[in-house]
Amino acid sequence: MAIYQKAKGTQDFYDIDAKKMDEVCAKAAKVASTYGCKYLKTPIFEHAEVFEKNVGEESDIVSKEMYTFKDKGDRLMTLRPEGTAAVARFFIENKLYANPGLTKLYYYGPMFRYERQQAGRYREFNQFGIEFYGQSSYLLDVDIIKCAYDIVRAFNIKNVVLKINSIGDFNSRANYSKALKEYFSKYIDSMCEDCKRRLNANPMRILDCKVDANNPAIKNAPNIKDYLTEESITYFNNVLKSLDNLNIPYVVDDNLVRGLDYYTDTVFEFIIQSDDALNGLALVAGGKYANMINSMCGVDVPGIGFALGVERLKAIADQVGYKWDFINDLKPVVIMALDDESKQESMKLASILRANDIQIEIDYSSISMKSQFKLAERVNAKYIIIIGEEERNTKIYTVKNTENRTQEKVKLEDLVKYIRG
Amino acid sequence: MAIYQKAKGTQDFYDIDAKKMDEVCAKAAKVASTYGCKYLKTPIFEHAEVFEKNVGEESDIVSKEMYTFKDKGDRLMTLRPEGTAAVARFFIENKLYANPGLTKLYYYGPMFRYERQQAGRYREFNQFGIEFYGQSSYLLDVDIIKCAYDIVRAFNIKNVVLKINSIGDFNSRANYSKALKEYFSKYIDSMCEDCKRRLNANPMRILDCKVDANNPAIKNAPNIKDYLTEESITYFNNVLKSLDNLNIPYVVDDNLVRGLDYYTDTVFEFIIQSDDALNGLALVAGGKYANMINSMCGVDVPGIGFALGVERLKAIADQVGYKWDFINDLKPVVIMALDDESKQESMKLASILRANDIQIEIDYSSISMKSQFKLAERVNAKYIIIIGEEERNTKIYTVKNTENRTQEKVKLEDLVKYIRG
Repeated sequence: MAIYQKAKGTQDFYDIDAKKMDEVCAKAAKVASTYGCKYLKTPIFEHAEVFEKNVGEESDIVSKEMYTFKDKGDRLMTLRPEGTAAVARFFIENKLYANPGLTKLYYYGPMFRYERQQAGRYREFNQFGIEFYGQSSYLLDVDIIKCAYDIVRAFNIKNVVLKINSIGDFNSRANYSKALKEYFSKYIDSMCEDCKRRLNANPMRILDCKVDANNPAIKNAPNIKDYLTEESITYFNNVLKSLDNLNIPYVVDDNLVRGLDYYTDTVFEFIIQSDDALNGLALVAGGKYANMINSMCGVDVPGIGFALGVERLKAIADQVGYKWDFINDLKPVVIMALDDESKQESMKLASILRANDIQIEIDYSSISMKSQFKLAERVNAKYIIIIGEEERNTKIYTVKNTENRTQEKVKLEDLVKYIRG
Repeated sequence: MAIYQKAKGTQDFYDIDAKKMDEVCAKAAKVASTYGCKYLKTPIFEHAEVFEKNVGEESDIVSKEMYTFKDKGDRLMTLRPEGTAAVARFFIENKLYANPGLTKLYYYGPMFRYERQQAGRYREFNQFGIEFYGQSSYLLDVDIIKCAYDIVRAFNIKNVVLKINSIGDFNSRANYSKALKEYFSKYIDSMCEDCKRRLNANPMRILDCKVDANNPAIKNAPNIKDYLTEESITYFNNVLKSLDNLNIPYVVDDNLVRGLDYYTDTVFEFIIQSDDALNGLALVAGGKYANMINSMCGVDVPGIGFALGVERLKAIADQVGYKWDFINDLKPVVIMALDDESKQESMKLASILRANDIQIEIDYSSISMKSQFKLAERVNAKYIIIIGEEERNTKIYTVKNTENRTQEKVKLEDLVKYIRG
């Protein structure tokens, strides 16, 4: 390991890459705001229990992928592997369940999972997410799916498929879990050690096993759709009808289950369709969780939410030729000084222009023309302002336009307008 | 410890608090862009050595305050305690020193120090920072101070004092270090164990000791100003003259030294003056580091930078009555449905209005008038749009203005304009 390298699985974002990351989050936040969501920033780390209890101790995230460490006060802390449990912790800690109506939140930032390295996966990655707490209604499910759809469309992305499924309410899942246990007990000898443990602890987790993914026992396992209660079936049909009403295309996928324990009823993903390594990956993943808050604090508050992969959205936006907002930024201006006194003057002029949001570049080390022209070339300056003794006295500056190779005399008071065009 | 609490020393930022945090960073970034700085996002954690070697092994940060842990690959990782060393790591890893001219970067985000809890200090806190690498010039020092000054002023903050000092170049510091060692060797028996170790390792660190802060031996210690080389004195005088030229007020403070090892020559702080717990704390702290990159990779690249406390800037901006940009956001609109079919219609209308950046609230669970009016009250809606059978057929909606208690019939095609006012 060379010391001066970023840690494996982490990323630096520089210049336009960093701006794209921020624009993804800012634009998603703007859409979320039209749904009445409030912004929440939770800390980077939480007490480990926050995630252990809610993401599910048998899930791969908790059992294998969390960055958990003891702090100097000997408390177990975890770098957040996802956003939902941390948002739920905030909701409970601040007793927001005492407020009437819905609590609607959006969040974004880095998440951390110690995953095997592969294309499109990082150990530190960024998510944008939305959580609605406090009501249960198929219209709400539809609106949150619509919100994800609006965000994706805001970046002109059309090469995604909305996959949707119902994994049933508490009763549906209890029946299903029982059926799975019975079924898998016949095949469990051919399965991995983790699955053997899961058989009693949480047989639904067996379906997500990466080791046994190709075991025919998993492929032929009972499907949740045959265990849904009447209530769950009606609920799901209403969701689908409302999606039709809003002209949001979707595919019902019987095999869609979410890898976390807290989901119930509606689950959905926006799957990427492209001819590169991103193909088939989820851009957005979400669903309803009727019992999560209840299992955390005993207060019966249904929730629903989704998370969106910021790196993935950025990559696909680039693929589809999305025009990033920040590319409209002005080009830089170089102020060139012909002598030392003019260099001091150039610092003052820079102040005035920067106060008008104009990017100013100065050669701090040299008054040589050659060096200063090189700077202008290097930063791709659109204008060069030249200051010598005459300009200092008259406050009329020579402004060179490097694009059309003209130059003009411009008065100090007209300079901002001239440059902003 | 209750499980569902944030970890000690960490913070949640909710709604306007979170938006203020983002606005501080966005506005600071905008100012930095006028200085030609590029945006850099580095990871939350780095190899521990990145900070150990550069912040200084004898500093309190490294010796006592870092969140360092072993990852699952048995590598020592540290949650970044500050930004400079991580930015330097990026600069070196990507060989940016091979580019001619200056590399100018800004960054922002959470930093982590396991500090004793006290007012205005958190274990996870946010910094905005700027780094210039590649040239050494007093004009550059002045421009970076000006940049900090512009950021502070962008929030209408005037109750800060710029304190500035020179802690000398490499030779000045070698002389000073020798003098300190000689001086402290007479008093070292009265000092703490850490200071005893520092006497040989790095006697300048003794001056920052929190345990011995009131020991008269520290108060009467030799001052760096008497050990500056001619070169450092001239350099510092040029910095001060240029600040005068730009009408930036400052106070030279002989006792200002920075708590990190890598600084040389110019150091500065913007100190808060207020009648609360923030009084006397640094809002901005920075300085020059001639040798840091060299000590990391053997390439001779001078650097200079500063970091700004985002929480502190936010608090002071509020104190001085700064008008946050985001308060100009539109107020929400509630769409009220009189029957189930109209509820479906309200979802469609919501789509249209949200696409025009208007915040729409819907009562997902009820078509009762009472419940829907309550929602309008709860979210402080400015407008209420009512949809029943007639409105569905005519596409002419009744719009109530809750502020002046009037109502009007508005056609679908005029609705956006009507609401945006």
